[in-house]
Amino acid sequence: MKKTTQFRKMLLSKELEFIMEAHNGLSAKIVEEAGFKGIWGSGLSISAALGVRDNNEASWTQVLDVLEFMSDATTIPILLDGDTGYGNFNNMRRLVKKLEQRDVAAVCIEDKLFPKTNSFIGGENQPLADIDEFSGKIKAAKDTQQDPDFSVVARLEAFIAGWGLDEALRRADAYHNAGADAILCHSKKADSSDVDAFMKEWGDRCPVIIVPTKYYSTPTDHFRDLGVSMAIWANHNMRASIKVMQDTTKRIYDDQSLINVEGNVVTVSEVFRIQGADELKEAEKLYLPTTGKKVNNIILA
Amino acid sequence: MKKTTQFRKMLLSKELEFIMEAHNGLSAKIVEEAGFKGIWGSGLSISAALGVRDNNEASWTQVLDVLEFMSDATTIPILLDGDTGYGNFNNMRRLVKKLEQRDVAAVCIEDKLFPKTNSFIGGENQPLADIDEFSGKIKAAKDTQQDPDFSVVARLEAFIAGWGLDEALRRADAYHNAGADAILCHSKKADSSDVDAFMKEWGDRCPVIIVPTKYYSTPTDHFRDLGVSMAIWANHNMRASIKVMQDTTKRIYDDQSLINVEGNVVTVSEVFRIQGADELKEAEKLYLPTTGKKVNNIILA
Amino acid sequence: MKKTTQFRKMLLSKELEFIMEAHNGLSAKIVEEAGFKGIWGSGLSISAALGVRDNNEASWTQVLDVLEFMSDATTIPILLDGDTGYGNFNNMRRLVKKLEQRDVAAVCIEDKLFPKTNSFIGGENQPLADIDEFSGKIKAAKDTQQDPDFSVVARLEAFIAGWGLDEALRRADAYHNAGADAILCHSKKADSSDVDAFMKEWGDRCPVIIVPTKYYSTPTDHFRDLGVSMAIWANHNMRASIKVMQDTTKRIYDDQSLINVEGNVVTVSEVFRIQGADELKEAEKLYLPTTGKKVNNIILA
Amino acid sequence: MKKTTQFRKMLLSKELEFIMEAHNGLSAKIVEEAGFKGIWGSGLSISAALGVRDNNEASWTQVLDVLEFMSDATTIPILLDGDTGYGNFNNMRRLVKKLEQRDVAAVCIEDKLFPKTNSFIGGENQPLADIDEFSGKIKAAKDTQQDPDFSVVARLEAFIAGWGLDEALRRADAYHNAGADAILCHSKKADSSDVDAFMKEWGDRCPVIIVPTKYYSTPTDHFRDLGVSMAIWANHNMRASIKVMQDTTKRIYDDQSLINVEGNVVTVSEVFRIQGADELKEAEKLYLPTTGKKVNNIILA
Repeated sequence: MKKTTQFRKMLLSKELEFIMEAHNGLSAKIVEEAGFKGIWGSGLSISAALGVRDNNEASWTQVLDVLEFMSDATTIPILLDGDTGYGNFNNMRRLVKKLEQRDVAAVCIEDKLFPKTNSFIGGENQPLADIDEFSGKIKAAKDTQQDPDFSVVARLEAFIAGWGLDEALRRADAYHNAGADAILCHSKKADSSDVDAFMKEWGDRCPVIIVPTKYYSTPTDHFRDLGVSMAIWANHNMRASIKVMQDTTKRIYDDQSLINVEGNVVTVSEVFRIQGADELKEAEKLYLPTTGKKVNNIILA
Repeated sequence: MKKTTQFRKMLLSKELEFIMEAHNGLSAKIVEEAGFKGIWGSGLSISAALGVRDNNEASWTQVLDVLEFMSDATTIPILLDGDTGYGNFNNMRRLVKKLEQRDVAAVCIEDKLFPKTNSFIGGENQPLADIDEFSGKIKAAKDTQQDPDFSVVARLEAFIAGWGLDEALRRADAYHNAGADAILCHSKKADSSDVDAFMKEWGDRCPVIIVPTKYYSTPTDHFRDLGVSMAIWANHNMRASIKVMQDTTKRIYDDQSLINVEGNVVTVSEVFRIQGADELKEAEKLYLPTTGKKVNNIILA
Repeated sequence: MKKTTQFRKMLLSKELEFIMEAHNGLSAKIVEEAGFKGIWGSGLSISAALGVRDNNEASWTQVLDVLEFMSDATTIPILLDGDTGYGNFNNMRRLVKKLEQRDVAAVCIEDKLFPKTNSFIGGENQPLADIDEFSGKIKAAKDTQQDPDFSVVARLEAFIAGWGLDEALRRADAYHNAGADAILCHSKKADSSDVDAFMKEWGDRCPVIIVPTKYYSTPTDHFRDLGVSMAIWANHNMRASIKVMQDTTKRIYDDQSLINVEGNVVTVSEVFRIQGADELKEAEKLYLPTTGKKVNNIILA
Repeated sequence: MKKTTQFRKMLLSKELEFIMEAHNGLSAKIVEEAGFKGIWGSGLSISAALGVRDNNEASWTQVLDVLEFMSDATTIPILLDGDTGYGNFNNMRRLVKKLEQRDVAAVCIEDKLFPKTNSFIGGENQPLADIDEFSGKIKAAKDTQQDPDFSVVARLEAFIAGWGLDEALRRADAYHNAGADAILCHSKKADSSDVDAFMKEWGDRCPVIIVPTKYYSTPTDHFRDLGVSMAIWANHNMRASIKVMQDTTKRIYDDQSLINVEGNVVTVSEVFRIQGADELKEAEKLYLPTTGKKVNNIILA
């Protein structure tokens, strides 16, 4: 099944679905191998992994290059955290075209201004996009996509920016009318009250996605009861990696030895397995001549 | 001090020095923060992180893009694992030029054929490069560098490929004469016997670097006694990341919740710290006008 | 019609077909606007335009980036001059995958060694690829393509390298058996005798493509009579550009004025037309709010 | 002499200096060979050559990749047409850092909003940047540069946008105070009246650069009399290329032959000369073993 169709089915299913963050080809593969049905291409995680800030410091094509490796490495759909679309409606059109080419199933854009700042950094002071301008961006994206199953998700920053339920609903409605396939209702509260309020009023006008990074202690069944369509585990592979790399590096530095680390890392063979070394070995049998080492020298040329 | 000079000083110091693997900007920063004086830009780790095989599946400019993020994120020198130089002497010249531009301090090339295969995959069947051709590549690299402190390291694959000490010494000598600043003596044995034999004969003709991935249980003091110049902890950040991401992803998948993971990952604030969010906040005070939110809308345009 | 299908139809048509060189998005558009049914993505022209040598100095992904702009700018098929496939069969597999993603219709590879040298530079001294190895590369490409209409063309360098008709036929046969959709019979003679000899023996085993750069004075009807399938005008947009830019630049330099140049260049409006400025103007009406300049400030943010 | 210093000397010289447009490595080389002392990296020409619009459709790193080829191919300074800096002050800081790395000598930014539209397309309706915001961007750029001779040029769009001399002067003064090394006074009139008015009031507060694309018929000595520092021939290599490629392609299409084109294009040998084929031939003698063709097979591997 096409990745776009897989993602569309998740959005429309009656179940609460889950997607998990990845930030490069390796983590994307791990997400797929764990059984997840979809991947969140987190802007925070991708920027952090690259070593830059979550403020559009990496260009949109540098992000696209990361996405391409992620998409090539996996068979499940990716929802890209596309920030503000990296400019205006025209930049958004180019983004959609490129994402479809790279077999990325869906993109989420947020109603803020370019260049963006992460929502958890002084979010309450961040100006929102003009509603009509943002709606035009959604419309442009939908008109651009070639594959009818490609999805565009509109992310509400109203709660983050300190506006109330009314503004959130007004915007969600406009974005939905502009063609958004789902609304991502973002909140930075430690409880789910923003989402609770929104879901109660929104009903089932279109699927709603949430990101429980700050309200992680809310039981998942509560989201089921609310009728949420999808939950995103947004940045935990990256945050787990940081912790373990800090610990591993420090341990090796202090010990001047690998001896205490060896048991806590995967084997080199496991790395080769994830990379697909076996497939290449089989392919060499098919496509490389076998007339001995001397010829081999030339063959590998 | 220039990164090239930092690395050169490590090579020439009387101490056994250590450098630690990184595979993206994030891990490079972590290596620097832990206190290491240098970074190993591992070909295996970079390819694995990208989601491809360690067989020159990523192009050399894609590797260079990774290196650029790593170099920009850090102030300590990087030694790039440059495979075979990605082609012949002319490709090597271009590589050196680009590495100097990106402020990468040194490059290591191995005496095998393009496209390469990881040395731990059937290494004994891998043909070696012609000695004269490989020596010409080293010479071309040394003649190309603009900064006299840029270093070129020649990696010996003779032991890996099943040749004995004589071939290793013959090659090391040729590479040294061609201008290599150091010899990386590679081995896949579970003990240090290859390195022991080599060091005994090589003496102090030029600095020797080792990679104790397979013989990790050999005490580090033994390498000191041998007169080894530098040890590379070659892929343990990547291998630790894989393990923790596999565990974290599985746990979240099984729990359908973040609750059991939250305590084992760094905070979002720690991510922001590593990314340098504070510097940007200070810079905004300097460079962004402060005449209120309305103007701010336009300002951020 | 899909670009791959368009190209396949040209290969299989009874007519002698023509494709014309381009080296960037601009020249590709010009080729399409002139009426040509296909584009030759020339390795010589692309490298020259980038400012590097035709010796795989640009990485294969840098070439791919050029191709992507060319493909995005046009609706007719592109046949990429893919050098030697940029490595072994596995690099070729990646290339095919990426070309299909970028909607490039076909790729031509030549039976030489990586890194390549242009065939018109000391071609007679250039070693050829091992037949079995090159055949394996073709087979790997054909097995990789997802779209059945994607085409793989095998370029014969036997005549260039000073081998005779027998070697050319032996190789053509092997490549055809390995799955090549067409044979490109290359020659550097000032007359068509190589092609004449080849066509007489080859018959119609599979379509044959020629590149009459050196034997340009042979009347085109002669190729029709021989039963050639396609002729490539291989580098003339680039060579015409060089001449006119040398002349224009010199004239402006000497005159310290544009006055004598203005009549010999297209207008700025013509540049905008080629770039598609009108479509954007229409799109702005659809997707940008129209509530006045003040809002416009925010909209464009 | 460093490229940055070369450019700085041109800015500060008493003479009227000239720089000429280029849009890829090839045209940049041609500009240098003609005798010009500097290159204009035109945003219009680069976008047109890529096949996209002059509306920030190419990402800033895609533009940077073009610049890198241009810079690598030449020894004279490049002034990049940097649009609006591709975002806010922080994007500008990254741009400056990357330009210095690629040995680009200077950048010009214009006081408009991201994403930009070419000034000759409805320029009078284009909103200008907030003065304080744009001044902050200049200041950020100047504080970022490592090389004291790197130059930042502020481009005035006030005349283009329909504002008068007062607004132009007010902005020029602010930008100069913020640290701009020169003011580029842009105009779309068919005569030099905007520039005349500006120069009369501006005096010699700092160097002034002009772009006489629209007022090309004004004699160059007039600009000397005004005390203009530098004139940019802004897009004529690209516009000449379009014309000649349109003509060449059409001629070949109509003739189904190269016969009438061959005399109007440079030879293949001239292409090789520009690419530097001779240097490589010499280098091969130095760096490639010469023990015969059989070894050669392996050597080129």
